[in-house]
Amino acid sequence: MAEIKNHKDKSQSVVLLIDCPDRKGLVASVTEFIFKNNGNIITLDQHIDAQKKVFFMRVEWDLEKFSIPREKIGEYLQALVAEKFKMKWRMYFSDETPRMAIFVSKLPHCLFDVLSRFQSGEWNVEVPVIISNHTDMEPVSKSFGIDYHVFQINKDNKKKQEIEQIKLLKKYDIDFIVLARYMQILTEDFVSNYENRIINIHHSFLPAFPGAKPYHSAYERGVKIIGATSHYVTAELDAGPIIEQDVVRVSHKDDVENMVRRGRDLEKVVLSRAITYHLEHKILIHENRTLVFH
Amino acid sequence: MAEIKNHKDKSQSVVLLIDCPDRKGLVASVTEFIFKNNGNIITLDQHIDAQKKVFFMRVEWDLEKFSIPREKIGEYLQALVAEKFKMKWRMYFSDETPRMAIFVSKLPHCLFDVLSRFQSGEWNVEVPVIISNHTDMEPVSKSFGIDYHVFQINKDNKKKQEIEQIKLLKKYDIDFIVLARYMQILTEDFVSNYENRIINIHHSFLPAFPGAKPYHSAYERGVKIIGATSHYVTAELDAGPIIEQDVVRVSHKDDVENMVRRGRDLEKVVLSRAITYHLEHKILIHENRTLVFH
Amino acid sequence: MAEIKNHKDKSQSVVLLIDCPDRKGLVASVTEFIFKNNGNIITLDQHIDAQKKVFFMRVEWDLEKFSIPREKIGEYLQALVAEKFKMKWRMYFSDETPRMAIFVSKLPHCLFDVLSRFQSGEWNVEVPVIISNHTDMEPVSKSFGIDYHVFQINKDNKKKQEIEQIKLLKKYDIDFIVLARYMQILTEDFVSNYENRIINIHHSFLPAFPGAKPYHSAYERGVKIIGATSHYVTAELDAGPIIEQDVVRVSHKDDVENMVRRGRDLEKVVLSRAITYHLEHKILIHENRTLVFH
Amino acid sequence: MAEIKNHKDKSQSVVLLIDCPDRKGLVASVTEFIFKNNGNIITLDQHIDAQKKVFFMRVEWDLEKFSIPREKIGEYLQALVAEKFKMKWRMYFSDETPRMAIFVSKLPHCLFDVLSRFQSGEWNVEVPVIISNHTDMEPVSKSFGIDYHVFQINKDNKKKQEIEQIKLLKKYDIDFIVLARYMQILTEDFVSNYENRIINIHHSFLPAFPGAKPYHSAYERGVKIIGATSHYVTAELDAGPIIEQDVVRVSHKDDVENMVRRGRDLEKVVLSRAITYHLEHKILIHENRTLVFH
Repeated sequence: MAEIKNHKDKSQSVVLLIDCPDRKGLVASVTEFIFKNNGNIITLDQHIDAQKKVFFMRVEWDLEKFSIPREKIGEYLQALVAEKFKMKWRMYFSDETPRMAIFVSKLPHCLFDVLSRFQSGEWNVEVPVIISNHTDMEPVSKSFGIDYHVFQINKDNKKKQEIEQIKLLKKYDIDFIVLARYMQILTEDFVSNYENRIINIHHSFLPAFPGAKPYHSAYERGVKIIGATSHYVTAELDAGPIIEQDVVRVSHKDDVENMVRRGRDLEKVVLSRAITYHLEHKILIHENRTLVFH
Repeated sequence: MAEIKNHKDKSQSVVLLIDCPDRKGLVASVTEFIFKNNGNIITLDQHIDAQKKVFFMRVEWDLEKFSIPREKIGEYLQALVAEKFKMKWRMYFSDETPRMAIFVSKLPHCLFDVLSRFQSGEWNVEVPVIISNHTDMEPVSKSFGIDYHVFQINKDNKKKQEIEQIKLLKKYDIDFIVLARYMQILTEDFVSNYENRIINIHHSFLPAFPGAKPYHSAYERGVKIIGATSHYVTAELDAGPIIEQDVVRVSHKDDVENMVRRGRDLEKVVLSRAITYHLEHKILIHENRTLVFH
Repeated sequence: MAEIKNHKDKSQSVVLLIDCPDRKGLVASVTEFIFKNNGNIITLDQHIDAQKKVFFMRVEWDLEKFSIPREKIGEYLQALVAEKFKMKWRMYFSDETPRMAIFVSKLPHCLFDVLSRFQSGEWNVEVPVIISNHTDMEPVSKSFGIDYHVFQINKDNKKKQEIEQIKLLKKYDIDFIVLARYMQILTEDFVSNYENRIINIHHSFLPAFPGAKPYHSAYERGVKIIGATSHYVTAELDAGPIIEQDVVRVSHKDDVENMVRRGRDLEKVVLSRAITYHLEHKILIHENRTLVFH
Repeated sequence: MAEIKNHKDKSQSVVLLIDCPDRKGLVASVTEFIFKNNGNIITLDQHIDAQKKVFFMRVEWDLEKFSIPREKIGEYLQALVAEKFKMKWRMYFSDETPRMAIFVSKLPHCLFDVLSRFQSGEWNVEVPVIISNHTDMEPVSKSFGIDYHVFQINKDNKKKQEIEQIKLLKKYDIDFIVLARYMQILTEDFVSNYENRIINIHHSFLPAFPGAKPYHSAYERGVKIIGATSHYVTAELDAGPIIEQDVVRVSHKDDVENMVRRGRDLEKVVLSRAITYHLEHKILIHENRTLVFH
């Protein structure tokens, strides 16, 4: 079957993400840099925030005949283009596989969905470890052959346990974290270790119904549509940059239990889309808002 | 063309809306009442709120061979069924045409949409009067042959002007009011005259972004979906029972101006759906939530 | 966690599905039957197809204090109500757990989604066996503790293999079959054994793009939205009664491979919704169309 | 009110649309051309169809300080960039207002929607004439102050009438045509005069249900979602390049009449979105497919 993308087949390419103050000649300078060095552009997206006068760009090019050696690209780019325009930039090579940790509590639906995509080869990612505050999901973890670590959390030990978690994440060389319905609020200290690298799924259409029990609140308010929101975690609860949202229609026939059930399907798909965009380096962040070049 | 519904062709029917404490035998009693008197049920919807133990029902039946004279139906229903079950009920005959007033400020999109549906015969409704705090929409009003009255509002004269408005509404024998982007907050006094009979369109996905400038707030928060909400007006701003909501996807490409533009299409369709449900007597209200039997 | 529905906790109830020629007194007679025997209606939906003059009803009631013994309900219903109105009816008791077989080929996404819902207790169902024409999904099957049988199919042995499959399905006492992206067309003989009890997921918005390679066809036609369709299998390919459909927006950026990827998420959710409706006995079929009382 | 876009306020800009065989250096060459001549890029979108090896680009830049005189831009572009890359290109200046003709039969909903957007200043467009095969919409036309011409069409006079229509369109200097539910099939000859400049709205989710009575077909097939499709008209009925589609959920409760009613709201919004994309020069066409850079 050819329907599953095989990530290994792709010839090697690089993704460059840029933001800087808007000026004339930005696209010309970057594309000139790529063209002169014999790179072939695969995709290019750019956006100008006219109000804030900021320029954003995502460009991916083929490295097959690129004349600058891979390890020198950043250096040359900085000297020849980025410095002049005060660019902030990041670069990702297609043959580097990001390492993702999953945090989960007791609910299996997001975890299953993420793991089944991982196992099917849908994503270019490694998942070396799952972390939980409960033992419930250990059998699932085992059936996918992934290490599972339990850190019981209470208000007295939270800080200490988080320090241990970070040690473990470092040991596993983790690039980014997915909270697959992890029922603990991370401290600012923890978050600062993985800035813009922790993806959460919140079970409401933010900014409506932040915090606990959003389906109960949605029911009480009598909304006709419920949603789910995936966002990067910041120090402020459910207030980080939104990556993806989706919604589903409900009616008076849907009691809270039914909203929970229907919401699960949203949560799964919204979280997985956010992970996809993150893995494909399609997300830029500016002043607590994301640009997603999908 | 047969594509436009002709409301006059329908044989006469009646819609009965009921809510009461849940008990055994409710559906049986109501349908027995209709059947024994030779009524033919056209549609029947019922819902039990299991948590609140409340029963809701909407039933429409054909009056052609109904054995109780039209003007006695309420009396018989009360004596034979409603009293026993402590039912609250309302009844609407299909040949009675509701009279709607439209309030508008300066934005034409919802007004145009409502008036074009009215003129096309899409709804069983009369629109004898449009009320505004500005003169801008007067030519539109005239081109549809509808009276237009301007009430300039400031914080000193609001109460007085509302009293005049209500006089005018009484004079026109208005059944319900549609706020088609009317940029004034109605006082509690005004609202109390038309309880559950004033339909507003708010340009956000409530409860997110109540109040002024929701598109600006949506842009600042970086949401990926924007919405519109139609609701009955209560004393508390943008907090009344929600009738209908819908959403549309946005991205970083959508600045505030573009959100406003895309939101207009939502506002039109969400408001018109709410009016349709209201005109078809499909809405029941309980504890600030609606049941819409569509 | 209270978020997962526990099917065992529900007090015992029964679902009755009815269709018959439309006549006066149908709802009254059925609800009277339930009420007089001390049943408490939990949900009631009915629909009249005005054009075809057919009446449909789904009613669920609590059996706790019902005065007719469970094994006699059908007999009494037939004698007291159904016969008079020429009703076709089916009855399902809440404590009977349906037994589902899954057919799959090589694609894992629908299989994983169905199994994870099964394992999470989201559905009241048993899954004793998975049948495939390939060995690929055997490890997945094993990790969920479900028997896996391979029947290699070619055009010469198809009829014979289907006979063996049916024997196996009988042995496992299977009530209904889910084709979770099973890449074989079932013969009319096979289908006739499980009429209206085989649920397929087709990866297009039917009736657009039936048959093989719908994503390729969608790409070539340049559609702006792709879909998935779940339907009961009939002798005619992709032409059975539609249970559920959903769609997702695509653009010129989506090549066939990307449509396949985005379509997978649709297929999962559309198939699972159809299974849910089937398990909750919410589907009535009439002249190749379904009524879904959700 | 600042909510309605005022097209006159924008400083002058130009949109360039390009397609050509894919090669290295395309973006660099175009952006260099703009940058060297002191143009400021406002938006840039590009797309490479990897399978067909075709490059597409839409770039808009500010002309305020652009060093090439407006009337020479095309000539310079051709000589300096386009020729080398075998580019096909079109250019649109922001201060040129396109002239649109509307064709309509008897149904008012799309016509009203288009005219109300026109009158509100939502679009940068002139609408000098409405053409119909019936007199029904003449009062609407008059109330918006637009000329209305009736051409009665039957199978004998069609060719002759179309010739007269084209004369009239030339007289009004029409750039493109909108078929706002015009119930006549245009001949190949007519279409060839306005290739890729006639926008139709079809009341189904194409390619499902082309031709007449799609809502009836949708009802008979029992689909759970209905749609509308806007496309450029080609010689083959309902087979031209799709510009925009949208859908709405239906159920067994929706008879044909109700589908027609709900479909109207789709048709309006889908047609108007297509017109918007056309007016903003966001559409490229290649091998019967559109790229819409929205």
